[in-house]
Amino acid sequence: MPTQLETAMDTLIKIFHHYSGKEGDKYKLNKGELKQLLQSELTDFLACQKDPQLVDKIMKDLDTNKDNEVDFNEYVVLVAALTVACNDFFEEQLRKRGKLKDSK
Amino acid sequence: MPTQLETAMDTLIKIFHHYSGKEGDKYKLNKGELKQLLQSELTDFLACQKDPQLVDKIMKDLDTNKDNEVDFNEYVVLVAALTVACNDFFEEQLRKRGKLKDSK
Repeated sequence: MPTQLETAMDTLIKIFHHYSGKEGDKYKLNKGELKQLLQSELTDFLACQKDPQLVDKIMKDLDTNKDNEVDFNEYVVLVAALTVACNDFFEEQLRKRGKLKDSK
Repeated sequence: MPTQLETAMDTLIKIFHHYSGKEGDKYKLNKGELKQLLQSELTDFLACQKDPQLVDKIMKDLDTNKDNEVDFNEYVVLVAALTVACNDFFEEQLRKRGKLKDSK
């Protein structure tokens, strides 16, 4: 039985290949595939982000890749950056809750 | 309803806090907490790795952090590195399978 963390890592791999396999290089996301992945897989999560420009900024960063393709490593960097941003928000909420508790 | 990718990112955050909250700084993993996380959450996944020294190497890298604590960002780097390693293995298998198919 895989653990929760193993399942999460496996999901990251499967999602990438689900979109990267649609057209062209099967192991890279072209712009259309990346857009589809972001729109289909990150809509709700991004809605809770404080920075509405986050995806645009990241896509712009990825665009420096001259062939306009995103490989698995770049995709993981993207997911990692978004997860860190969400965790920052989560920890902020926990700290606020802790302070509220302390002040009671 | 969260998407599969959102659920995976959420799991990464929850797992970190499950272990980091055990003792000391609630937002960082000390050595004992990191070891527990690796042993409990990554056993099966690491078993399929070709490099049995992988975790040791990564732990050594993380040890350069002078306070012997791993924050969320460092944890995400660890998870990202392991996911990339597993994906490399996965893509290699896919390519081999593709070649077998082509030669038939």
